[in-house]
Amino acid sequence: MTTPVRSDRADLALPLEWDGESLEIIDQRMLPLDERRVRLQTCEDVATAIRCLAVRGAPLLGIAAAYGLVLAARERRLGEGAALLRAARPTAVNLPRTVDRCLALASAAPGSESDVLLLEARRLERIEADASDAISAHGAALLAGARTVMTVCNTGALGTSHRGTGLGIIVRLAGHGPVEAICCETRPLLQGSRLTTWELSRSGVAATVIVDGAAAATMRTRRVDAVIVGCDRLAANGDLVNKIGTYGVALAADAHGIPFIVAATSSSIDRSTPTGDDVEIEERDAREVLDLVPGAAALPGVTASNPAFDVTPARLITAVVTEHGAFRVGDDPRAAKLAVRIERRDP
Amino acid sequence: MTTPVRSDRADLALPLEWDGESLEIIDQRMLPLDERRVRLQTCEDVATAIRCLAVRGAPLLGIAAAYGLVLAARERRLGEGAALLRAARPTAVNLPRTVDRCLALASAAPGSESDVLLLEARRLERIEADASDAISAHGAALLAGARTVMTVCNTGALGTSHRGTGLGIIVRLAGHGPVEAICCETRPLLQGSRLTTWELSRSGVAATVIVDGAAAATMRTRRVDAVIVGCDRLAANGDLVNKIGTYGVALAADAHGIPFIVAATSSSIDRSTPTGDDVEIEERDAREVLDLVPGAAALPGVTASNPAFDVTPARLITAVVTEHGAFRVGDDPRAAKLAVRIERRDP
Repeated sequence: MTTPVRSDRADLALPLEWDGESLEIIDQRMLPLDERRVRLQTCEDVATAIRCLAVRGAPLLGIAAAYGLVLAARERRLGEGAALLRAARPTAVNLPRTVDRCLALASAAPGSESDVLLLEARRLERIEADASDAISAHGAALLAGARTVMTVCNTGALGTSHRGTGLGIIVRLAGHGPVEAICCETRPLLQGSRLTTWELSRSGVAATVIVDGAAAATMRTRRVDAVIVGCDRLAANGDLVNKIGTYGVALAADAHGIPFIVAATSSSIDRSTPTGDDVEIEERDAREVLDLVPGAAALPGVTASNPAFDVTPARLITAVVTEHGAFRVGDDPRAAKLAVRIERRDP
Repeated sequence: MTTPVRSDRADLALPLEWDGESLEIIDQRMLPLDERRVRLQTCEDVATAIRCLAVRGAPLLGIAAAYGLVLAARERRLGEGAALLRAARPTAVNLPRTVDRCLALASAAPGSESDVLLLEARRLERIEADASDAISAHGAALLAGARTVMTVCNTGALGTSHRGTGLGIIVRLAGHGPVEAICCETRPLLQGSRLTTWELSRSGVAATVIVDGAAAATMRTRRVDAVIVGCDRLAANGDLVNKIGTYGVALAADAHGIPFIVAATSSSIDRSTPTGDDVEIEERDAREVLDLVPGAAALPGVTASNPAFDVTPARLITAVVTEHGAFRVGDDPRAAKLAVRIERRDP
């Protein structure tokens, strides 16, 4: 899929840029060691980049898919391209939702399909950027005074196209005083220690990496003011589907009375799916788990289970922050610890 | 420290063997790919092997230290050797306890210190082997009928010198019907995916590895009959100090009503330490966490916290199984799910 572009850009800020002909991305698998940019020139390139996590993060998946459809329309295979993109990853709602919306726009368009799709891709990118700005502001108000925040996976610019969701809040909090982000490394693909560290370092926010198993102990032995996680899909009942490990961190935060905050652009809210258990959880290759241990996969009787996401029930969520503000999806008493009073409502 | 011995033994069963002159161990860091045996010829070799986790597991640390003192006595530097061994790792009680006991025996001995110490090392090795047999039997009775058991780190022969504690129970359960062990990989050093898989494969028990972050989700989406963990130290109030990650798994097991079983030889019970919070938790090198991500350690403002153990409060423990039988340290209602009725008592 890849035509390397530049690997030494000092001003790198966007995980993805449309250059008029193709989609230039940072290959996120190479970070933090190598800030390699590659050019995706076909719809198939985009689908491959999504499948292999060169591009990732629920909001960014939607944007990438929208540009992928522009390429598909130019290739005169919009239907086929749409199917490819839709099948690339199953869990985040942003991917099928964007594909459906773009297909409907294209079929209703009087003129060029690709022109309509390009306008829509640019519009979506702008909407997500504005949403991440608003989420950062709402979240920072909600957590005013928080100095130590635990986070899972990567919820920064790399997953959204602008400030990020959860990481946007943390960086904004750091504008009001020293903040330490405790980053769960997020096995198997280590988005926490690879991507979140890289973004925080660029933003000048102190980052402490822990193994995922240390999350509960860290809450027990240190002051942790809040947990902030992202969102691959929020179901109609308020259940959160997010990166594997989120649920265990939510249980630990509940046990320790630490507010558990979901930062989500509204593009990741799916009112048509009743509960988290109705969402398809992507099961990825066992090798992502076992490849760390040479020889393990060859042991007779040994295998691995590798779900990429888990479900956190609504009752464990203190607040959801979207671009429209913060709200509760349950009756979590930890909401009383937040700096802003928020109401309960449906997602 | 190392003189490689043989790497192709088909009958390998013991993680450690005294050959009359030196201590032959499996270098556990090389498993499962390489079953490399090395010979520890000085007390300092033994301390180094303990520090770097070539030898590990609370019961085995005690045995290794006892043989290390034999070497120290032969080197005519018993006091110095004792200090070295005692300082090698701080958390498991077996290490200081064995050193203290052996020093007392040596100072009271009428004849050769090293002869007395060798007798004591052999005695300790036999006691731990017998204890692991008894724990396996008691635990299997307690969990009769359990088919899917989750475990953390390694609690097998590699950590004890014989059947193992937790893994001994699982292997014994498998003698009564098919059993699947769900092995948390146990970052940062991956004892679950490196050592537990290797032992289970040799025993013919099916092993499914998960990333540590998937423990809670696995309990939510699959039937898990019990969690069995080992013990680095059990405090007087029943708090468990064990491998980092244990506490989070205990919280998840509690949330899902899954019995949480501690398998411990009584050599790991420390009645002189009031609570888990009174135990020194070993903080290991940040590189063990960050080295998985090239470039992460060099990012400005990025560091890692790497506690090797955590504390699980007694109230989250359903039963403790020692060689003397099973007992409760709290009033956990999950005890009603066990196949054998057990009483509450102090550790």
